[in-house]
Amino acid sequence: MIILDGKKVSNDIKDEIAAQVAIMKSKGEKVPHLAAVLVGTDGASMTYVGAKVKACERIGFESTLIDLPEETTEQELLSHIHNLNNNDDIDGFIVQLPLPKHIDEQKVLMAVDPDKDVDGFHPTNVGRMTLDLPSFLPATPFGILELLERYNVETSGKHVVVMGRSHIVGRPMSILMSQKRNAGNATVTVVHSRTQNLAEFTRDADIIVAAIGISEFLKGDMVKDGVVIIDVGITRVPDDTKKRGYRLAGDVDFESVSKKASFITPVPGGVGPMTIAMLLKNTLLAREMRS
Amino acid sequence: MIILDGKKVSNDIKDEIAAQVAIMKSKGEKVPHLAAVLVGTDGASMTYVGAKVKACERIGFESTLIDLPEETTEQELLSHIHNLNNNDDIDGFIVQLPLPKHIDEQKVLMAVDPDKDVDGFHPTNVGRMTLDLPSFLPATPFGILELLERYNVETSGKHVVVMGRSHIVGRPMSILMSQKRNAGNATVTVVHSRTQNLAEFTRDADIIVAAIGISEFLKGDMVKDGVVIIDVGITRVPDDTKKRGYRLAGDVDFESVSKKASFITPVPGGVGPMTIAMLLKNTLLAREMRS
Repeated sequence: MIILDGKKVSNDIKDEIAAQVAIMKSKGEKVPHLAAVLVGTDGASMTYVGAKVKACERIGFESTLIDLPEETTEQELLSHIHNLNNNDDIDGFIVQLPLPKHIDEQKVLMAVDPDKDVDGFHPTNVGRMTLDLPSFLPATPFGILELLERYNVETSGKHVVVMGRSHIVGRPMSILMSQKRNAGNATVTVVHSRTQNLAEFTRDADIIVAAIGISEFLKGDMVKDGVVIIDVGITRVPDDTKKRGYRLAGDVDFESVSKKASFITPVPGGVGPMTIAMLLKNTLLAREMRS
Repeated sequence: MIILDGKKVSNDIKDEIAAQVAIMKSKGEKVPHLAAVLVGTDGASMTYVGAKVKACERIGFESTLIDLPEETTEQELLSHIHNLNNNDDIDGFIVQLPLPKHIDEQKVLMAVDPDKDVDGFHPTNVGRMTLDLPSFLPATPFGILELLERYNVETSGKHVVVMGRSHIVGRPMSILMSQKRNAGNATVTVVHSRTQNLAEFTRDADIIVAAIGISEFLKGDMVKDGVVIIDVGITRVPDDTKKRGYRLAGDVDFESVSKKASFITPVPGGVGPMTIAMLLKNTLLAREMRS
């Protein structure tokens, strides 16, 4: 059983990007500039945005954090986005989700210039991805493709079962792995809450991407020997033996499933770190497109 | 075994639209206006465009045919599209494919205003479909959903196998049937040329959408009893017993498969007629959006 070490691979990718940025600098070229918009004081959101800004600094990107109060109106937020769209110094930007309830999330995402949409959430980028045209791929699916590729996991002709049909993981993952591309050409099934006999599908799978948000849902008796496991879930599970009172768990019961798996991502340290690395990669791509 | 009669259902839909147009007229409102752009003299394309224009006349739509010579340049075609985008009298328009080889098809499709893109081919509409936002659905998948719905074929929780991953049929079909919608909530698998053990998937399927373009590929021994069959294929097969020297065949071997099927579309008279009906429905929708 081989651990798909997202922490290590994401560090490799960051080092590769940092080397490219160093070359840009030595040539006197503008370096990539990522902006992040945060509205309110949600703890998890602040942590995520902080990690993104820190990663930018580490690899030599410029970064800007636009930190807005909880009571920001939709109109005010849209006006910030308009400014970012028109600011030539900014190559790409993200709006950290979730937004406060009084703001229409979809409306805000639609306002982002698709050419600066490094999260890949704008319908135009989603459509370009679906049509297999060049686009910003959403960071989590992009990271999973990269992880499979760097570990030379064969996907062509394999049966991939994607658990979950969310817009940011399950749906794009199922489309991408079915296309003619690296880490693609797979036979993909999407299972979800309405699926009947779910375990019959997972037991037939060569590769499982678990993204349903239910902790330790996938057990050892639901998979076959040699399966490749990508665990996208990350949930806090109460645990009195831990000082902080909880532990982090994925959608996969690591203990029982890892015994049968040929490759498996740990939680944490698997898919999570890859997501930030691919956001940086998209920002580099945005800079290259604009130069 | 019940025949899914696309010819009958498409006529029902056209009658329903004609009734709505009659009401619009009686109120003195503008009726929907569809334009079609045809470049060159490809026989099949001329037939398809002719059928679309004729269908418009029958139900009371206005229609405009822009018939351009084979040697039209890309720039000239783009300028026609620009005019259609800006012509307030036109509610929706289509560019008949394929285009002559000296014209970049993707570039032309991207030039169509998404709000007039009644074929649903623009990346913005594809993205909106993928994200389950209101959009123009591509006509063939839209027609299949409508056919399943009008025959009350249960899809929720069923295993649907979509054969083929094309941008205009296989891919959108697989996305739509997996979403929370009418004729949706299915567990969908996409199989294609790289799939291993294809018959194992088709034998497990409750519903099969065959869209691979290989005549009579799916045989009776590849499906289970009670399967629902949607045959999107239409190919000319040489046949000396016919006056014209050929017959039309689908991707399904009707003779052997129909013996096991609970519902099946014929070829011709199944999916084909539905496609034009849904193009008209999209044009009506475009008119309503603009009024």
